[in-house]
Amino acid sequence: MQPLMTETELATYLDEVFPEMKGKFVIEEVSPMFARVRRRVTPDDLRPGGTVSGPTMFSLADCAFYAVTLAMIGRQALAVTTSCAINFMRKPEPRDLTCEARILKLGRALAVGDCTIFSPGVEGPVAHATLTYSIPPAR
Amino acid sequence: MQPLMTETELATYLDEVFPEMKGKFVIEEVSPMFARVRRRVTPDDLRPGGTVSGPTMFSLADCAFYAVTLAMIGRQALAVTTSCAINFMRKPEPRDLTCEARILKLGRALAVGDCTIFSPGVEGPVAHATLTYSIPPAR
Amino acid sequence: MQPLMTETELATYLDEVFPEMKGKFVIEEVSPMFARVRRRVTPDDLRPGGTVSGPTMFSLADCAFYAVTLAMIGRQALAVTTSCAINFMRKPEPRDLTCEARILKLGRALAVGDCTIFSPGVEGPVAHATLTYSIPPAR
Amino acid sequence: MQPLMTETELATYLDEVFPEMKGKFVIEEVSPMFARVRRRVTPDDLRPGGTVSGPTMFSLADCAFYAVTLAMIGRQALAVTTSCAINFMRKPEPRDLTCEARILKLGRALAVGDCTIFSPGVEGPVAHATLTYSIPPAR
Repeated sequence: MQPLMTETELATYLDEVFPEMKGKFVIEEVSPMFARVRRRVTPDDLRPGGTVSGPTMFSLADCAFYAVTLAMIGRQALAVTTSCAINFMRKPEPRDLTCEARILKLGRALAVGDCTIFSPGVEGPVAHATLTYSIPPAR
Repeated sequence: MQPLMTETELATYLDEVFPEMKGKFVIEEVSPMFARVRRRVTPDDLRPGGTVSGPTMFSLADCAFYAVTLAMIGRQALAVTTSCAINFMRKPEPRDLTCEARILKLGRALAVGDCTIFSPGVEGPVAHATLTYSIPPAR
Repeated sequence: MQPLMTETELATYLDEVFPEMKGKFVIEEVSPMFARVRRRVTPDDLRPGGTVSGPTMFSLADCAFYAVTLAMIGRQALAVTTSCAINFMRKPEPRDLTCEARILKLGRALAVGDCTIFSPGVEGPVAHATLTYSIPPAR
Repeated sequence: MQPLMTETELATYLDEVFPEMKGKFVIEEVSPMFARVRRRVTPDDLRPGGTVSGPTMFSLADCAFYAVTLAMIGRQALAVTTSCAINFMRKPEPRDLTCEARILKLGRALAVGDCTIFSPGVEGPVAHATLTYSIPPAR
């Protein structure tokens, strides 16, 4: 099953529906059931000890899973997160983060999958999340 | 077991260690193993359909559980979230959210508990999360 | 919203649809959006160190949340667990466990809630779980 | 980092520490940070509709992650599950299940990773879980 949207189409669409996040995320790669998304980290995203905040990592997992879901089902701004279980495993460096999102099941009403977050310079993932998105019936 | 910090002491301390979040959170109540925290919602926190974003709710649960943990163990800026499982259940109204955080276990190295998030005007909680915080050994 | 089934009706129904679990669970109380269920613990359920196994606690949370869901929606044997996030917090004693299950949202297609498990003689809950059940459309 | 135990050594050790589970699990493969474990499914593990029960899948994820953790750290019967977040995605066939367990972080005190469960004849995983194990300090 091929993606219905390219990296550029996804980026344009995200800017349109989430203008408040413009410039924060870079869609690096989209392939079947997979997306890799980078989060540009700014001083606002940092925490004491020179690391990236948990909410920043959560928002990256959430956005990357949204991106892979949209890529597979097409423009559906109203797809919504219904659950996320995230483990924070290592302290990220205070710089950009990369997230690999993978769909494990794409049903009519739900997409289920996981996200693995990497911090360049840190060996092993810094966080791992499983997510569920609800897909509106109107598609 | 009584809290070691009052609402005002907590608010002052959070402003000091997380200056980038200043003005976003209001510590409404602290009692043994419990805190209620309000998140001031601004246009940046909204999403298509006039609702509050998932990352905003995550950051509220994370902050409220941090607040109740600090209230019980005292100033420990380096306590870090190790896991969070969150369910989004209802669409919040586009206004302030309230979170009730409760510690279920306070060990030497870990605090475990849950958070329930309410949106005034919505019947029933809008989100529920379970969280684990790691407490640094130096306390 | 009142339960549609009593403790006795639930117990009879569970024995009928899950004959392999007969005698393991006791429905102690059902009230609106709430159930308390006891798990009879036998030597097979124990682990090294004289404690109750994780799978036994998982099965109790799963059964108790199924019980409260059925109590509210009526006989629906095909309601199925779609997710569970469980934290094991304290070592239970090698004897019966009690679980309090609570529905936080009862929608048309999903029930979401949490379960808190207690071991008599242990102060504080031994485990806490959040669960999601999918409700078949035919009701 | 090579495993400290082979498939046969693990199987022997599990039979010794968990005699009540003897014959239920087959350690099919162990490699660095990875294990594949099969669960022999019997009539007791089935549910209405001819599928495998949720607790059976939970116990497989729990056992497989225990196996990979032991394989990497050596005999530590008292390593205990501290959390598990599991998503049930597809209905398994009423026969043996296979689980692939992977460690994402092996720290001194915690092992964190995920498990993906397959049912032969079903396309795509039937369940996915993330787990955390606490490792006793005495190693």
